[in-house]
Amino acid sequence: MTHINPYYSRLTESFLFYETKQRAAAFEAAHPERRLLRLGIGDVTLPLAPVVVEALHRAVEEQARKESFHGYMPELGKDFMKRAAAANYARRGVELDPEEIFISYGIGDDLGAIGGLFARENRVGVVEPAYPAYVDTNLMAGREIIPIPGTEENGFLPLPGPELRAELVYLCSPNNPTGAAYPASRLQLWVDWANAHGAVLIFDAAYEAFITQADVPHSIYELPGAKRCAIELFSLSKSAGFTGTRLGYTVVPKVLVREGKSLQSLWVRNRTTCTNGVSYLLQRAGEAALSEEGLRQSRANLEVYRENARVLTSVLNSRGVRYFGGENAPYIWFRCPGDPDSWRFFDQLMEKAGIVGTPGAGFGACGEGWFRFSCFGSPEDTAEAAARLMSFL
Amino acid sequence: MTHINPYYSRLTESFLFYETKQRAAAFEAAHPERRLLRLGIGDVTLPLAPVVVEALHRAVEEQARKESFHGYMPELGKDFMKRAAAANYARRGVELDPEEIFISYGIGDDLGAIGGLFARENRVGVVEPAYPAYVDTNLMAGREIIPIPGTEENGFLPLPGPELRAELVYLCSPNNPTGAAYPASRLQLWVDWANAHGAVLIFDAAYEAFITQADVPHSIYELPGAKRCAIELFSLSKSAGFTGTRLGYTVVPKVLVREGKSLQSLWVRNRTTCTNGVSYLLQRAGEAALSEEGLRQSRANLEVYRENARVLTSVLNSRGVRYFGGENAPYIWFRCPGDPDSWRFFDQLMEKAGIVGTPGAGFGACGEGWFRFSCFGSPEDTAEAAARLMSFL
Repeated sequence: MTHINPYYSRLTESFLFYETKQRAAAFEAAHPERRLLRLGIGDVTLPLAPVVVEALHRAVEEQARKESFHGYMPELGKDFMKRAAAANYARRGVELDPEEIFISYGIGDDLGAIGGLFARENRVGVVEPAYPAYVDTNLMAGREIIPIPGTEENGFLPLPGPELRAELVYLCSPNNPTGAAYPASRLQLWVDWANAHGAVLIFDAAYEAFITQADVPHSIYELPGAKRCAIELFSLSKSAGFTGTRLGYTVVPKVLVREGKSLQSLWVRNRTTCTNGVSYLLQRAGEAALSEEGLRQSRANLEVYRENARVLTSVLNSRGVRYFGGENAPYIWFRCPGDPDSWRFFDQLMEKAGIVGTPGAGFGACGEGWFRFSCFGSPEDTAEAAARLMSFL
Repeated sequence: MTHINPYYSRLTESFLFYETKQRAAAFEAAHPERRLLRLGIGDVTLPLAPVVVEALHRAVEEQARKESFHGYMPELGKDFMKRAAAANYARRGVELDPEEIFISYGIGDDLGAIGGLFARENRVGVVEPAYPAYVDTNLMAGREIIPIPGTEENGFLPLPGPELRAELVYLCSPNNPTGAAYPASRLQLWVDWANAHGAVLIFDAAYEAFITQADVPHSIYELPGAKRCAIELFSLSKSAGFTGTRLGYTVVPKVLVREGKSLQSLWVRNRTTCTNGVSYLLQRAGEAALSEEGLRQSRANLEVYRENARVLTSVLNSRGVRYFGGENAPYIWFRCPGDPDSWRFFDQLMEKAGIVGTPGAGFGACGEGWFRFSCFGSPEDTAEAAARLMSFL
């Protein structure tokens, strides 16, 4: 008899966002007259940049003709796309060898695969509140999870203490869900800790495009020593509106060595075995998105999302609700007013104000009592949500 | 100190096709005056069908406008794409619930992930010669591999014997690399064995579009009892020329239950945790490829590849070389003439005839002494390869 993976029993029944989607769908089915406004999942609503659209049409035409047709892609990514990613780092003074950049369909997929590099025995520290996949992918692999709690007191930017016993640590800055972002001086403490302990940091840079504060690094590799301890995950989902189009990459530096092995070479072996390359079309889209013109065109969309954040935080300000984020990040993280049970607040807010958000408890125990709004809606919906919120609070 | 995955040391240094590519590149660098003809990797060369190209352009335009823009896809696939896949099965009399169909970027990626469903303790039977990822992905997960050797005597279609002790079995029919295809009566023996032993079959249907023989099933689910024991992997790579465009799916039937758990529900949990949905553009391309018109347009390309097979096998026939395949499959599997060391034959064939193939030993020990040609080149290159081969043999 085939044995199933015994560790699935450690997971909750369903993934956080699947659960919130189901609750919202059930509400809509029961109340077809009500229009729900969605500030829940961090999903973009503005279209791809014109330069990306043109690149996609051109790539489709290449696939339509024998003379320009592309078959299998290299499993690690096409050179043009790796160069575009490397150039994006060079703009911030970070030098990467294109062989250290692995093109992928985005962070979600890479988070699902990266654990394959490591033994089951590693203890996994997770800076919480956190994107649930950091925890769930490691639970499924049988690893012990050590929550590293963010709190109002530490500004949701916890630092490593002498008591921390973990060999892998997941960090996201600017953070999903809190919007808090590590300044270089504090992130350096994580890098120094990892190098001192031989630990590996998994750094999720999904929200770097939203950074406005000068002392917040866009890449962990801006910090001395980071290449010797950190893997960085990057995505075009939020910065260029690629949530439904898909493209991202993962950086594994060659100097990141553990137990005498370069993790870069292990990741080459993993990707060449477990994947078959990323669609040519999407790699051309990614190249265009990371061009100067692509970045310039996307910036206009980011400005819309930033303005949404200002509209929503102004309501929280006027009602005296404590919050984090809304700057450097497309998320606002606020204390549930009144009832501190964030799932109950989720239901109340949906039923009374017709707004769908995300309960903080879904991001880890220390998220209880807090709630997340994302700022990716249309300006019209955001204005309407702000008005409803003003009456509700 | 972080512990790396201890099982990577069980792998050979590099993946088979990476090695053949490196050797060919080195030869070309040393002999710029020689033109190599590539009958190695099974990569298509003919363009996407017009109906697919139109669907892609339309999808790109949707992503260009706010009103029609698509953000995150459902992790398990869009309904339209699942329905297109279900309709493809219905044409063969196989009824599937769209919830049993999981849209993916192709078989390569799904092979890399599917092992996550199972415990490390399962023994993995692999019908060899085999696509190396069946073995390598399981070596990386720490599982014991039990080769099930195909031989000239069993027509490279081995059957389960009473001595077989495996809880998972990988099967590919029509087979890569041998081109051999199980008729329904023999494949049924595998289904019956799996049901009797509570084993799970991983059935790779990548080459079903090449089947011409009436008694060879296109899907394992055409056989009674298969839904209770088999997972099927499908790809548009070869059938619709999607190797560089990417789309496929995996079927996990709801009635496939082990240790009291439905594997379908475990796979839902796996995919919603470890992936973030397949690009909207590619799902529209897949829907078009599986439409009646898409299938009709692709058939013309398949006919070109079949004619290539006829051109190459006629040389082998005239030289009295023993081979399998070339019917029901885009691969020809032949005995290395003279020297039985297939890597040495690889080098000789490249150096003397300028033809790159794939050494049989790369597909498992029982592949030693054999060699694979793929039939995806242009008719012109295939004719030239046939002429060179005729002089070489």
